[in-house]
Amino acid sequence: MGFTSNTKKTKKVFVIKVGGNIIDDDAKLDSFLRDFAAIKENKILVHGGGKLATSVGEAMGLKQLLIDGRRVTDAETLKVITMVYAGYINKNLVAKLQSLGCNAIGLCGADANIIKAHKRIHPTIDYGYVGDIDHVDTGFFKILFNNNVTPVFAPVTHDENGLLNTNADSIAKEIASAMSQLYHVHLVYCFEKSGVLMEPENDNSTIAQMNEATYLELKNKKIISSGMIPKLDNSFDALKSGVQKVLIGNADKLHDLLTYHSGTAIVHE
Amino acid sequence: MGFTSNTKKTKKVFVIKVGGNIIDDDAKLDSFLRDFAAIKENKILVHGGGKLATSVGEAMGLKQLLIDGRRVTDAETLKVITMVYAGYINKNLVAKLQSLGCNAIGLCGADANIIKAHKRIHPTIDYGYVGDIDHVDTGFFKILFNNNVTPVFAPVTHDENGLLNTNADSIAKEIASAMSQLYHVHLVYCFEKSGVLMEPENDNSTIAQMNEATYLELKNKKIISSGMIPKLDNSFDALKSGVQKVLIGNADKLHDLLTYHSGTAIVHE
Repeated sequence: MGFTSNTKKTKKVFVIKVGGNIIDDDAKLDSFLRDFAAIKENKILVHGGGKLATSVGEAMGLKQLLIDGRRVTDAETLKVITMVYAGYINKNLVAKLQSLGCNAIGLCGADANIIKAHKRIHPTIDYGYVGDIDHVDTGFFKILFNNNVTPVFAPVTHDENGLLNTNADSIAKEIASAMSQLYHVHLVYCFEKSGVLMEPENDNSTIAQMNEATYLELKNKKIISSGMIPKLDNSFDALKSGVQKVLIGNADKLHDLLTYHSGTAIVHE
Repeated sequence: MGFTSNTKKTKKVFVIKVGGNIIDDDAKLDSFLRDFAAIKENKILVHGGGKLATSVGEAMGLKQLLIDGRRVTDAETLKVITMVYAGYINKNLVAKLQSLGCNAIGLCGADANIIKAHKRIHPTIDYGYVGDIDHVDTGFFKILFNNNVTPVFAPVTHDENGLLNTNADSIAKEIASAMSQLYHVHLVYCFEKSGVLMEPENDNSTIAQMNEATYLELKNKKIISSGMIPKLDNSFDALKSGVQKVLIGNADKLHDLLTYHSGTAIVHE
């Protein structure tokens, strides 16, 4: 069965996640979007938030804007996330991509019922409006690709009661995993660093290639910074569920990253 | 040629615009969305704003939130409109429709390049980021209908430089007019009143049917309230460009409106 399904996969899909620090940096974002628009293969962009959510949240009187997936998302925080991520950031990315000749469409998980989620279940903590993903519908992406339309995804999903805040790295991983049933999927995590680093502040210490054994070893030695751990867990999960390649690196060097001239390649062995 | 193209139109499409006062009224909005979700034919929802834009604008320090199409939209106002209309309102409408079994997708004019506009041209006034519509791409709507997906449209369009604030009534009219080349289109303007009224505050004075001659007569006699004039101008423009019917009436009686038991029907003769 593996053989049969693999022979059907003739097309490549890039699922590319770009982080909030890049959204806030006009020059890096422009460079990233130009390289993204120039990708000839089918592609999906997943974006995080940025500083605007914090400033809008503060303006609206939220004492602390709780956007980290590990913390509680109350109704007002969800409102700010929906406005800023699924509204302002998402639609501005779409408009910029359109101006670069990329026929983008801005979506969240509720749109066309693409990502169904449930409120996070935890024995003692109520995380509020935080969604963990149950299902990604690949059918609608296929329709968009067939019509040369590029999805741009905000980190918002839904259950039967409404919208839910969902971690953008997890959305990218789940979309990549689901799409890997139909396509050769490359998952790419783009941010402000050159990749996975041996020394946290030294971009020249980028690890070019990493398998799970190396990861566990470096994690045990506390060499991997704690912020990288969820991203790397997502990366190895993605490989195990059928994603062909995972790359981690600089958003403003996307072309170099995709051609293996920059960044960290996460590999099976 | 008219005959040939008419014989191809076998399917009906409803283009339904719902106003901001309904968005702000939970009970009326629920009633409206239930009736909207129950429509079996292809349908497009276009929504306006609501009070949230004003309160977010005030929280962010805008002295006056300029959302009326006739006034200047500066960069900060466009930001609030994009956050609230294309983000919060749009995605919450989508999530509610999904929970009612209607497979909705939230869009603005930049998405899939559906509505191209230009900044309003005026000999003396710079309206700022206000868009007048040049072109509606019917092809993407057709793809959505073929896959049983219902578009929900925020009043935001774009040009080659970015997003633009565009009047929701005009968006509904332009979508209806463009779609009338392919479908039998019924354009429906839903709001908090029973229709076009002979006496502004008396819902029992609804005019059941109105042609352009009657409109011009009532307008000359100052019987039509000034707020209704752009809506009625849009209605007669729509009829002239091929839309089959235009209905104006109560959002919370959508079923009655669509079955001609309520509201004002705008007719050719």
